[in-house]
Amino acid sequence: MEYNETIAQILNHTSIRKWKKKDIEENILNKLYDVAMRTATSNGMQQASIIRVVDKEKRLKIAEICTQKYINEAPEFWIFIADQYRNYQIIEESKTEKNHANDADRFIAAVTDASLMAQNTVNAAESLGLGTVFFGSILNDTKKVIEILELPKYTLPIVGLGIGYPDQKPELKPRMNKKFRIFTDKYENFENYNSALSEHDKEMITYYDLRNPNRPLNKFTEQVVDKFSQQILERKNIINVALEQGFKFDLRNN
Amino acid sequence: MEYNETIAQILNHTSIRKWKKKDIEENILNKLYDVAMRTATSNGMQQASIIRVVDKEKRLKIAEICTQKYINEAPEFWIFIADQYRNYQIIEESKTEKNHANDADRFIAAVTDASLMAQNTVNAAESLGLGTVFFGSILNDTKKVIEILELPKYTLPIVGLGIGYPDQKPELKPRMNKKFRIFTDKYENFENYNSALSEHDKEMITYYDLRNPNRPLNKFTEQVVDKFSQQILERKNIINVALEQGFKFDLRNN
Repeated sequence: MEYNETIAQILNHTSIRKWKKKDIEENILNKLYDVAMRTATSNGMQQASIIRVVDKEKRLKIAEICTQKYINEAPEFWIFIADQYRNYQIIEESKTEKNHANDADRFIAAVTDASLMAQNTVNAAESLGLGTVFFGSILNDTKKVIEILELPKYTLPIVGLGIGYPDQKPELKPRMNKKFRIFTDKYENFENYNSALSEHDKEMITYYDLRNPNRPLNKFTEQVVDKFSQQILERKNIINVALEQGFKFDLRNN
Repeated sequence: MEYNETIAQILNHTSIRKWKKKDIEENILNKLYDVAMRTATSNGMQQASIIRVVDKEKRLKIAEICTQKYINEAPEFWIFIADQYRNYQIIEESKTEKNHANDADRFIAAVTDASLMAQNTVNAAESLGLGTVFFGSILNDTKKVIEILELPKYTLPIVGLGIGYPDQKPELKPRMNKKFRIFTDKYENFENYNSALSEHDKEMITYYDLRNPNRPLNKFTEQVVDKFSQQILERKNIINVALEQGFKFDLRNN
């Protein structure tokens, strides 16, 4: 199939974890800011923000939380924030009756806004010859990240992003067949995923990540079992941290 | 500032709510599927799916939930799903010990995955001359959408997307100054948002949305107050619906 430049670039996306020792020019950064600000936002409410982490001490602390040292070497390291602080302040200042009995929808909308913003930043960065990597690992200790970034109530960090001129060219990571993920009109079950995904499993074991060429990866199905069982305990508290940040969910049963 | 094609297109994104009566060609759809499948995913776990809603009855029902009739006219209407069903099935089949004591992190990762996928689909669609519009309104009654799409446990619809060849060219919606949303090293408070945002408020009242040129919009700060107070009640139950879908959050205080 023939792809245009925008699509070809999305299809060639790989995580870049090694960057040239070269700062990103101010005019390039400004383009990325423009893109982030322009990103679609639920109800037009602009409920996502970015903290650009420049301070070396803060980077060190966050890299430790993420257990990924190369965060310190990323020319740029941004954290995307689900942010209802601003809007709740506007409401408070307006002296209309506040209603925080249940912020669940507003919370999810902000998480979505932050994610859309992150993806647009990635696409814009790559179109400028930059390489990026997402850091979900900032959620290893969300509370600590909140402290480091001095985040106010009604905010939550969602994902980190390293950006810089790439100094590696990793292989594309295999994806399962789209029949497992794209459906018409209703969700389609597969009787046995472990056998249905055997082709994807084969692709995955022959795929070697350039970041560690000596270590062959497990089958996809084995990765799922491993990753879900090895999950860092503190990461599971993200909804509790959201509650501590002031969001209310009015749960009926849990 | 001079922008490349990818960035110029992101910066010119507007919601398209009126489409030409023209189906999207199969080869174009395939490109969008490729992009969706290739989108970055937390831990490589591929925890998002798409339901393409073709069935007219289902569209009608969803358009009613969204209170947006033009969903029926969208050449394509997709719903992006936070999806841990597949991975949890893989774990169950593998007969390793399941651990669903707390799925909070997995839930947020899936919401993020679905959102990234939606944004990439938008960018790819626009690069092909298509117009798009997000429908957060599918969450007006998440439970009903789950029924209509026959979604299994450990899934949750996150956002809808209308796609087609545009038959309108709306104005760009104003955005607040980036000083309110992009920070360095720590979050910056503003003493009074209603006064700090007065310029943005002015821009907003002079902006008329082409979809309804006769109705001037409120100031941004007024929109915030209005939208947050008029929120549809059922929408606030999204976290409860997630619990009903089998996710567990192990909340310490609520």
